[in-house]
Amino acid sequence: MNLAEVIGTIWATKKDPNMEGLKMQLIQPITTKHKKTGEPLIAVDTVGAGSGEIVFYVTAYEAVIPLQNQPALVDASIVGIVDRIEDTA
Amino acid sequence: MNLAEVIGTIWATKKDPNMEGLKMQLIQPITTKHKKTGEPLIAVDTVGAGSGEIVFYVTAYEAVIPLQNQPALVDASIVGIVDRIEDTA
Amino acid sequence: MNLAEVIGTIWATKKDPNMEGLKMQLIQPITTKHKKTGEPLIAVDTVGAGSGEIVFYVTAYEAVIPLQNQPALVDASIVGIVDRIEDTA
Amino acid sequence: MNLAEVIGTIWATKKDPNMEGLKMQLIQPITTKHKKTGEPLIAVDTVGAGSGEIVFYVTAYEAVIPLQNQPALVDASIVGIVDRIEDTA
Amino acid sequence: MNLAEVIGTIWATKKDPNMEGLKMQLIQPITTKHKKTGEPLIAVDTVGAGSGEIVFYVTAYEAVIPLQNQPALVDASIVGIVDRIEDTA
Repeated sequence: MNLAEVIGTIWATKKDPNMEGLKMQLIQPITTKHKKTGEPLIAVDTVGAGSGEIVFYVTAYEAVIPLQNQPALVDASIVGIVDRIEDTA
Repeated sequence: MNLAEVIGTIWATKKDPNMEGLKMQLIQPITTKHKKTGEPLIAVDTVGAGSGEIVFYVTAYEAVIPLQNQPALVDASIVGIVDRIEDTA
Repeated sequence: MNLAEVIGTIWATKKDPNMEGLKMQLIQPITTKHKKTGEPLIAVDTVGAGSGEIVFYVTAYEAVIPLQNQPALVDASIVGIVDRIEDTA
Repeated sequence: MNLAEVIGTIWATKKDPNMEGLKMQLIQPITTKHKKTGEPLIAVDTVGAGSGEIVFYVTAYEAVIPLQNQPALVDASIVGIVDRIEDTA
Repeated sequence: MNLAEVIGTIWATKKDPNMEGLKMQLIQPITTKHKKTGEPLIAVDTVGAGSGEIVFYVTAYEAVIPLQNQPALVDASIVGIVDRIEDTA
Protein backbone atom coordinates (compact mmCIF):
# COMPACT_ATOMS: atom_id res chain seq x y z
CA MET A 1 0.00 0.00 0.00
CA ASN A 2 1.11 3.56 -0.53
CA LEU A 3 0.48 6.87 1.13
CA ALA A 4 -1.46 9.72 -0.44
CA GLU A 5 -3.17 12.97 0.43
CA VAL A 6 -6.76 13.51 -0.60
CA ILE A 7 -6.65 16.60 -2.82
CA GLY A 8 -9.94 16.71 -4.65
CA THR A 9 -12.91 15.01 -6.16
CA ILE A 10 -14.03 13.99 -9.62
CA TRP A 11 -17.50 13.99 -11.12
CA ALA A 12 -18.72 11.81 -13.96
CA THR A 13 -22.37 11.35 -14.83
CA LYS A 14 -21.72 9.15 -17.84
CA LYS A 15 -19.96 6.07 -16.53
CA ASP A 16 -20.18 2.35 -16.30
CA PRO A 17 -23.36 1.37 -14.38
CA ASN A 18 -21.32 -0.58 -11.82
CA MET A 19 -19.68 2.63 -10.68
CA GLU A 20 -22.96 4.29 -9.65
CA GLY A 21 -22.84 5.53 -6.08
CA LEU A 22 -19.11 5.15 -5.65
CA LYS A 23 -17.30 8.19 -4.30
CA MET A 24 -14.21 8.99 -6.29
CA GLN A 25 -11.45 11.03 -4.73
CA LEU A 26 -8.46 12.63 -6.35
CA ILE A 27 -5.38 11.61 -4.37
CA GLN A 28 -1.76 12.75 -4.54
CA PRO A 29 0.72 9.98 -3.73
CA ILE A 30 3.23 11.12 -1.10
CA THR A 31 6.32 9.74 0.60
CA THR A 32 6.58 9.05 4.33
CA LYS A 33 8.16 12.51 4.52
CA HIS A 34 5.00 14.00 2.99
CA LYS A 35 6.65 14.88 -0.31
CA LYS A 36 4.68 14.48 -3.52
CA THR A 37 5.69 11.52 -5.63
CA GLY A 38 4.21 11.06 -9.07
CA GLU A 39 0.93 12.34 -10.48
CA PRO A 40 -2.46 12.39 -8.72
CA LEU A 41 -4.79 9.50 -9.44
CA ILE A 42 -8.43 8.68 -8.92
CA ALA A 43 -9.33 6.26 -6.12
CA VAL A 44 -12.63 4.99 -4.82
CA ASP A 45 -13.13 5.97 -1.20
CA THR A 46 -14.84 3.49 1.09
CA VAL A 47 -13.62 4.87 4.43
CA GLY A 48 -14.93 8.41 4.22
CA ALA A 49 -11.67 10.29 3.86
CA GLY A 50 -11.88 14.07 3.60
CA SER A 51 -9.85 16.59 1.64
CA GLY A 52 -6.38 17.06 3.15
CA GLU A 53 -6.35 13.76 5.04
CA ILE A 54 -3.43 11.33 4.69
CA VAL A 55 -4.63 7.92 3.57
CA PHE A 56 -3.19 4.67 2.32
CA TYR A 57 -4.57 3.00 -0.73
CA VAL A 58 -4.31 -0.22 -2.66
CA THR A 59 -3.96 -0.56 -6.39
CA ALA A 60 -4.67 -3.38 -8.83
CA TYR A 61 -6.90 -6.35 -8.21
CA GLU A 62 -7.39 -5.87 -4.50
CA ALA A 63 -9.11 -2.60 -5.17
CA VAL A 64 -12.25 -4.46 -6.14
CA ILE A 65 -12.67 -6.12 -2.77
CA PRO A 66 -14.23 -3.33 -0.70
CA LEU A 67 -17.13 -3.10 -3.10
CA GLN A 68 -18.60 -6.46 -2.52
CA ASN A 69 -22.07 -6.19 -3.88
CA GLN A 70 -20.88 -4.81 -7.15
CA PRO A 71 -18.02 -5.97 -9.31
CA ALA A 72 -16.16 -2.71 -9.42
CA LEU A 73 -14.42 -1.12 -12.34
CA VAL A 74 -11.76 0.35 -10.16
CA ASP A 75 -8.05 -0.17 -9.87
CA ALA A 76 -7.34 2.04 -6.85
CA SER A 77 -9.13 2.26 -3.52
CA ILE A 78 -8.54 4.16 -0.28
CA VAL A 79 -8.52 1.60 2.53
CA GLY A 80 -7.46 3.55 5.60
CA ILE A 81 -6.78 6.95 7.10
CA VAL A 82 -3.32 7.29 8.62
CA ASP A 83 -3.06 8.20 12.32
CA ARG A 84 0.69 8.00 12.70
CA ILE A 85 3.77 6.86 10.82
CA GLU A 86 6.87 5.71 12.69
CA ASP A 87 9.77 5.87 10.26
CA THR A 88 13.04 4.85 11.88
CA ALA A 89 15.08 5.01 8.68
CA MET B 1 -8.03 5.16 -12.23
CA ASN B 2 -6.26 7.68 -14.39
CA LEU B 3 -7.29 10.49 -16.69
CA ALA B 4 -6.88 10.44 -20.45
CA GLU B 5 -8.05 12.21 -23.57
CA VAL B 6 -9.50 10.20 -26.40
CA ILE B 7 -7.23 10.95 -29.37
CA GLY B 8 -7.99 8.34 -31.97
CA THR B 9 -9.09 4.89 -32.92
CA ILE B 10 -7.43 1.67 -33.96
CA TRP B 11 -8.55 -0.92 -36.48
CA ALA B 12 -7.62 -4.58 -36.54
CA THR B 13 -9.42 -7.18 -38.61
CA LYS B 14 -7.16 -10.04 -37.58
CA LYS B 15 -7.53 -10.43 -33.85
CA ASP B 16 -8.52 -12.79 -31.12
CA PRO B 17 -12.17 -13.87 -31.60
CA ASN B 18 -13.10 -12.62 -28.13
CA MET B 19 -12.33 -9.08 -29.17
CA GLU B 20 -14.88 -9.02 -31.99
CA GLY B 21 -17.26 -6.09 -31.65
CA LEU B 22 -15.24 -4.24 -29.04
CA LYS B 23 -14.53 -0.61 -29.80
CA MET B 24 -10.92 0.30 -29.26
CA GLN B 25 -9.91 3.89 -28.65
CA LEU B 26 -6.50 5.43 -28.63
CA ILE B 27 -6.16 7.44 -25.42
CA GLN B 28 -3.48 9.87 -24.22
CA PRO B 29 -2.97 9.77 -20.44
CA ILE B 30 -3.10 13.28 -18.95
CA THR B 31 -2.62 14.89 -15.55
CA THR B 32 -5.35 16.76 -13.69
CA LYS B 33 -3.85 19.89 -15.27
CA HIS B 34 -4.48 18.39 -18.73
CA LYS B 35 -0.80 17.84 -19.50
CA LYS B 36 0.22 14.74 -21.40
CA THR B 37 1.91 12.09 -19.29
CA GLY B 38 3.43 9.07 -20.96
CA GLU B 39 2.58 7.46 -24.27
CA PRO B 40 -0.90 6.85 -25.73
CA LEU B 41 -2.39 3.42 -25.17
CA ILE B 42 -5.28 1.41 -26.52
CA ALA B 43 -8.36 1.02 -24.33
CA VAL B 44 -11.70 -0.67 -24.87
CA ASP B 45 -14.52 1.84 -24.71
CA THR B 46 -17.78 0.75 -23.10
CA VAL B 47 -19.20 4.17 -22.33
CA GLY B 48 -19.26 5.69 -25.80
CA ALA B 49 -16.55 8.30 -25.42
CA GLY B 50 -15.82 10.48 -28.43
CA SER B 51 -12.62 11.95 -29.76
CA GLY B 52 -11.42 14.84 -27.60
CA GLU B 53 -13.37 13.84 -24.51
CA ILE B 54 -11.67 13.51 -21.11
CA VAL B 55 -12.22 10.07 -19.66
CA PHE B 56 -10.95 7.95 -16.81
CA TYR B 57 -9.87 4.41 -17.37
CA VAL B 58 -8.85 1.33 -15.46
CA THR B 59 -5.92 -0.90 -16.24
CA ALA B 60 -5.09 -4.51 -15.37
CA TYR B 61 -7.51 -7.15 -14.22
CA GLU B 62 -10.47 -4.88 -13.65
CA ALA B 63 -10.50 -4.04 -17.31
CA VAL B 64 -12.15 -7.35 -18.05
CA ILE B 65 -15.22 -6.64 -15.97
CA PRO B 66 -17.27 -4.44 -18.31
CA LEU B 67 -17.30 -7.13 -20.93
CA GLN B 68 -19.28 -9.69 -19.08
CA ASN B 69 -20.43 -12.05 -21.72
CA GLN B 70 -17.00 -12.48 -23.15
CA PRO B 71 -13.76 -13.04 -21.31
CA ALA B 72 -11.90 -10.09 -22.70
CA LEU B 73 -8.33 -9.92 -23.84
CA VAL B 74 -7.99 -6.36 -22.69
CA ASP B 75 -5.92 -4.70 -20.05
CA ALA B 76 -7.29 -1.16 -20.28
CA SER B 77 -10.87 0.06 -20.39
CA ILE B 78 -12.55 3.47 -20.40
CA VAL B 79 -15.09 3.46 -17.57
CA GLY B 80 -16.33 7.04 -17.41
CA ILE B 81 -16.41 10.45 -19.04
CA VAL B 82 -15.24 13.26 -16.77
CA ASP B 83 -17.65 16.13 -16.09
CA ARG B 84 -15.56 18.07 -13.63
CA ILE B 85 -12.39 17.76 -11.59
CA GLU B 86 -11.98 19.64 -8.30
CA ASP B 87 -8.29 19.77 -7.53
CA THR B 88 -7.58 21.65 -4.33
CA ALA B 89 -3.87 20.90 -4.29
CA MET C 1 -3.19 -2.61 -24.78
CA ASN C 2 0.00 -1.37 -26.34
CA LEU C 3 1.53 -1.39 -29.77
CA ALA C 4 4.59 -3.40 -30.75
CA GLU C 5 6.47 -4.64 -33.76
CA VAL C 6 7.28 -8.31 -34.05
CA ILE C 7 11.08 -8.43 -34.26
CA GLY C 8 12.07 -12.01 -33.63
CA THR C 9 11.46 -15.32 -32.01
CA ILE C 10 12.72 -17.19 -28.98
CA TRP C 11 13.43 -20.90 -28.55
CA ALA C 12 13.42 -22.81 -25.31
CA THR C 13 13.34 -26.57 -25.11
CA LYS C 14 13.51 -26.73 -21.35
CA LYS C 15 10.42 -25.01 -20.08
CA ASP C 16 7.32 -25.43 -17.99
CA PRO C 17 5.15 -28.21 -19.50
CA ASN C 18 2.18 -25.85 -19.82
CA MET C 19 4.09 -23.77 -22.34
CA GLU C 20 4.56 -26.64 -24.81
CA GLY C 21 3.30 -25.71 -28.25
CA LEU C 22 2.99 -22.01 -27.58
CA LYS C 23 4.66 -19.74 -30.11
CA MET C 24 6.74 -17.07 -28.47
CA GLN C 25 7.57 -13.90 -30.34
CA LEU C 26 10.02 -11.21 -29.49
CA ILE C 27 8.22 -7.88 -29.72
CA GLN C 28 9.47 -4.30 -29.57
CA PRO C 29 6.98 -1.90 -27.96
CA ILE C 30 6.43 1.16 -30.14
CA THR C 31 4.51 4.43 -29.95
CA THR C 32 1.68 5.37 -32.30
CA LYS C 33 4.37 7.21 -34.26
CA HIS C 34 6.27 3.93 -34.67
CA LYS C 35 9.11 4.94 -32.34
CA LYS C 36 10.64 2.32 -30.09
CA THR C 37 9.69 2.66 -26.44
CA GLY C 38 11.35 0.48 -23.84
CA GLU C 39 13.00 -2.90 -24.25
CA PRO C 40 11.73 -5.85 -26.32
CA LEU C 41 9.74 -8.47 -24.46
CA ILE C 42 8.52 -11.99 -25.10
CA ALA C 43 4.84 -12.50 -25.89
CA VAL C 44 2.79 -15.54 -26.77
CA ASP C 45 1.30 -15.21 -30.24
CA THR C 46 -2.18 -16.60 -30.79
CA VAL C 47 -3.07 -14.63 -33.91
CA GLY C 48 -0.25 -15.68 -36.23
CA ALA C 49 1.68 -12.43 -36.47
CA GLY C 50 4.77 -12.43 -38.62
CA SER C 51 8.08 -10.66 -38.30
CA GLY C 52 7.75 -6.94 -39.03
CA GLU C 53 4.01 -6.75 -38.40
CA ILE C 54 2.54 -4.16 -36.04
CA VAL C 55 0.48 -5.81 -33.33
CA PHE C 56 -1.20 -4.89 -30.08
CA TYR C 57 -0.71 -6.99 -27.00
CA VAL C 58 -2.04 -7.37 -23.50
CA THR C 59 0.03 -7.81 -20.38
CA ALA C 60 -0.69 -9.26 -16.94
CA TYR C 61 -3.60 -11.45 -16.00
CA GLU C 62 -5.51 -11.12 -19.23
CA ALA C 63 -2.66 -12.74 -21.08
CA VAL C 64 -3.74 -16.13 -19.80
CA ILE C 65 -7.14 -15.97 -21.45
CA PRO C 66 -6.34 -16.92 -25.08
CA LEU C 67 -4.88 -20.21 -23.98
CA GLN C 68 -7.97 -21.75 -22.63
CA ASN C 69 -7.16 -25.41 -22.44
CA GLN C 70 -4.00 -24.82 -20.57
CA PRO C 71 -3.36 -22.53 -17.64
CA ALA C 72 -0.64 -20.46 -19.21
CA LEU C 73 2.55 -19.26 -17.63
CA VAL C 74 2.54 -16.13 -19.69
CA ASP C 75 2.19 -12.49 -18.83
CA ALA C 76 2.13 -11.02 -22.33
CA SER C 77 0.11 -12.06 -25.37
CA ILE C 78 -0.35 -10.67 -28.87
CA VAL C 79 -4.10 -10.29 -29.42
CA GLY C 80 -4.38 -8.50 -32.75
CA ILE C 81 -2.60 -7.27 -35.85
CA VAL C 82 -3.04 -3.56 -36.51
CA ASP C 83 -4.59 -2.50 -39.82
CA ARG C 84 -4.71 1.21 -39.23
CA ILE C 85 -4.25 3.77 -36.47
CA GLU C 86 -6.08 7.09 -36.54
CA ASP C 87 -4.26 9.43 -34.22
CA THR C 88 -5.84 12.88 -34.14
CA ALA C 89 -3.60 14.25 -31.39
CA MET D 1 9.80 -10.95 -5.02
CA ASN D 2 11.94 -8.03 -3.95
CA LEU D 3 14.14 -7.23 -1.01
CA ALA D 4 13.36 -4.59 1.60
CA GLU D 5 14.38 -3.45 5.05
CA VAL D 6 11.73 -2.99 7.71
CA ILE D 7 12.02 0.66 8.71
CA GLY D 8 8.89 1.48 10.64
CA THR D 9 5.25 0.95 11.35
CA ILE D 10 2.00 2.67 10.47
CA TRP D 11 -1.11 3.15 12.56
CA ALA D 12 -4.63 3.65 11.26
CA THR D 13 -7.72 3.35 13.42
CA LYS D 14 -10.15 4.28 10.68
CA LYS D 15 -9.79 1.63 8.00
CA ASP D 16 -11.61 -0.98 6.06
CA PRO D 17 -13.02 -3.62 8.46
CA ASN D 18 -11.17 -6.40 6.66
CA MET D 19 -7.85 -4.88 7.69
CA GLU D 20 -8.54 -5.18 11.43
CA GLY D 21 -5.77 -7.04 13.22
CA LEU D 22 -3.29 -6.92 10.36
CA LYS D 23 0.16 -5.62 11.23
CA MET D 24 1.37 -3.06 8.75
CA GLN D 25 5.07 -2.40 8.40
CA LEU D 26 6.82 0.38 6.59
CA ILE D 27 9.46 -1.18 4.35
CA GLN D 28 12.25 0.35 2.27
CA PRO D 29 12.97 -1.58 -0.96
CA ILE D 30 16.69 -2.32 -1.29
CA THR D 31 18.99 -3.90 -3.85
CA THR D 32 21.01 -7.06 -3.23
CA LYS D 33 23.84 -4.68 -2.32
CA HIS D 34 21.64 -3.16 0.40
CA LYS D 35 21.19 0.14 -1.37
CA LYS D 36 17.84 1.90 -1.17
CA THR D 37 15.80 1.73 -4.36
CA GLY D 38 12.58 3.71 -4.63
CA GLU D 39 10.29 4.97 -1.89
CA PRO D 40 9.18 3.08 1.23
CA LEU D 41 5.84 1.33 1.02
CA ILE D 42 3.39 -0.26 3.43
CA ALA D 43 3.26 -4.06 3.58
CA VAL D 44 1.27 -6.46 5.72
CA ASP D 45 3.58 -8.59 7.84
CA THR D 46 2.59 -12.20 8.40
CA VAL D 47 6.01 -13.56 9.37
CA GLY D 48 6.79 -11.38 12.36
CA ALA D 49 9.61 -9.29 10.92
CA GLY D 50 11.16 -6.70 13.20
CA SER D 51 12.56 -3.26 12.55
CA GLY D 52 15.92 -3.43 10.73
CA GLU D 53 15.43 -6.93 9.39
CA ILE D 54 15.90 -7.71 5.68
CA VAL D 55 12.80 -9.29 4.20
CA PHE D 56 11.41 -10.21 0.83
CA TYR D 57 7.89 -9.29 -0.11
CA VAL D 58 5.35 -9.89 -2.83
CA THR D 59 3.21 -7.28 -4.50
CA ALA D 60 -0.08 -7.41 -6.39
CA TYR D 61 -2.62 -10.20 -6.28
CA GLU D 62 -0.52 -12.74 -4.42
CA ALA D 63 -0.39 -10.42 -1.46
CA VAL D 64 -3.91 -11.46 -0.51
CA ILE D 65 -3.04 -15.12 -0.06
CA PRO D 66 -1.45 -15.16 3.40
CA LEU D 67 -4.60 -13.74 4.92
CA GLN D 68 -6.87 -16.58 4.24
CA ASN D 69 -9.79 -16.01 6.52
CA GLN D 70 -10.25 -12.49 5.38
CA PRO D 71 -10.27 -11.11 1.87
CA ALA D 72 -7.49 -8.63 2.34
CA LEU D 73 -7.30 -5.11 1.02
CA VAL D 74 -3.58 -5.30 0.62
CA ASP D 75 -1.27 -5.20 -2.35
CA ALA D 76 2.04 -5.89 -0.61
CA SER D 77 2.96 -8.53 1.94
CA ILE D 78 6.17 -9.61 3.66
CA VAL D 79 6.58 -13.35 3.06
CA GLY D 80 10.04 -14.16 4.42
CA ILE D 81 13.02 -12.95 6.40
CA VAL D 82 16.30 -13.21 4.50
CA ASP D 83 19.08 -15.30 6.05
CA ARG D 84 21.62 -15.02 3.30
CA ILE D 85 21.95 -13.81 -0.30
CA GLU D 86 24.48 -15.34 -2.65
CA ASP D 87 25.01 -12.91 -5.50
CA THR D 88 27.55 -14.17 -8.00
CA ALA D 89 27.07 -11.33 -10.46
CA MET E 1 7.83 -12.54 -20.32
CA ASN E 2 11.27 -11.05 -19.89
CA LEU E 3 14.80 -12.31 -20.09
CA ALA E 4 17.13 -12.66 -17.12
CA GLU E 5 20.37 -14.28 -16.08
CA VAL E 6 20.44 -16.43 -12.97
CA ILE E 7 23.00 -14.74 -10.72
CA GLY E 8 22.53 -16.21 -7.29
CA THR E 9 20.33 -17.74 -4.65
CA ILE E 10 18.55 -16.57 -1.54
CA TRP E 11 18.01 -18.39 1.76
CA ALA E 12 15.23 -17.76 4.23
CA THR E 13 14.35 -20.12 7.03
CA LYS E 14 11.63 -17.94 8.48
CA LYS E 15 9.02 -17.59 5.80
CA ASP E 16 5.40 -18.17 5.00
CA PRO E 17 4.61 -21.92 5.28
CA ASN E 18 3.39 -22.03 1.69
CA MET E 19 6.87 -21.21 0.44
CA GLU E 20 8.50 -24.28 2.02
CA GLY E 21 10.41 -26.31 -0.54
CA LEU E 22 10.40 -23.67 -3.25
CA LYS E 23 13.77 -22.84 -4.76
CA MET E 24 14.36 -19.13 -4.98
CA GLN E 25 16.84 -17.76 -7.46
CA LEU E 26 18.27 -14.30 -7.73
CA ILE E 27 17.89 -13.17 -11.32
CA GLN E 28 19.22 -10.14 -13.19
CA PRO E 29 16.85 -8.89 -15.90
CA ILE E 30 18.68 -8.43 -19.22
CA THR E 31 17.87 -7.16 -22.70
CA THR E 32 18.00 -9.32 -25.83
CA LYS E 33 21.53 -7.91 -26.25
CA HIS E 34 22.45 -9.34 -22.84
CA LYS E 35 22.72 -5.95 -21.15
CA LYS E 36 21.53 -5.57 -17.57
CA THR E 37 18.26 -3.71 -17.20
CA GLY E 38 17.01 -2.80 -13.74
CA GLU E 39 17.76 -4.43 -10.40
CA PRO E 40 17.97 -8.15 -9.65
CA LEU E 41 14.82 -9.75 -8.27
CA ILE E 42 13.89 -13.01 -6.59
CA ALA E 43 12.03 -15.60 -8.64
CA VAL E 44 10.82 -19.10 -7.87
CA ASP E 45 12.53 -21.63 -10.13
CA THR E 46 10.46 -24.57 -11.33
CA VAL E 47 12.57 -25.55 -14.33
CA GLY E 48 15.91 -26.19 -12.65
CA ALA E 49 17.90 -23.27 -14.01
CA GLY E 50 21.50 -22.99 -12.91
CA SER E 51 23.69 -20.02 -12.15
CA GLY E 52 24.70 -18.19 -15.35
CA GLU E 53 21.87 -19.54 -17.47
CA ILE E 54 19.62 -17.23 -19.48
CA VAL E 55 15.99 -17.74 -18.58
CA PHE E 56 12.66 -16.10 -19.19
CA TYR E 57 10.30 -15.43 -16.35
CA VAL E 58 6.76 -14.29 -15.70
CA THR E 59 5.69 -11.74 -13.14
CA ALA E 60 2.40 -11.02 -11.38
CA TYR E 61 -0.55 -13.33 -11.10
CA GLU E 62 0.65 -15.98 -13.53
CA ALA E 63 3.60 -16.65 -11.28
CA VAL E 64 1.36 -18.67 -8.98
CA ILE E 65 0.42 -21.20 -11.63
CA PRO E 66 3.46 -23.53 -11.65
CA LEU E 67 3.00 -24.29 -7.99
CA GLN E 68 -0.27 -26.03 -8.20
CA ASN E 69 -0.55 -27.90 -4.95
CA GLN E 70 0.21 -24.86 -2.92
CA PRO E 71 -1.16 -21.37 -3.29
CA ALA E 72 2.13 -19.61 -3.72
CA LEU E 73 3.18 -16.31 -2.25
CA VAL E 74 5.27 -15.48 -5.25
CA ASP E 75 5.07 -12.80 -7.88
CA ALA E 76 7.90 -13.93 -10.16
CA SER E 77 8.69 -17.35 -11.56
CA ILE E 78 11.26 -18.73 -14.02
CA VAL E 79 9.33 -20.65 -16.68
CA GLY E 80 11.95 -21.56 -19.27
CA ILE E 81 15.63 -21.69 -20.15
CA VAL E 82 16.50 -19.88 -23.37
CA ASP E 83 18.18 -21.87 -26.13
CA ARG E 84 18.32 -19.18 -28.76
CA ILE E 85 17.03 -15.70 -29.49
CA GLU E 86 16.50 -14.49 -33.03
CA ASP E 87 16.36 -10.73 -32.96
CA THR E 88 15.89 -9.25 -36.41
CA ALA E 89 15.53 -5.66 -35.22
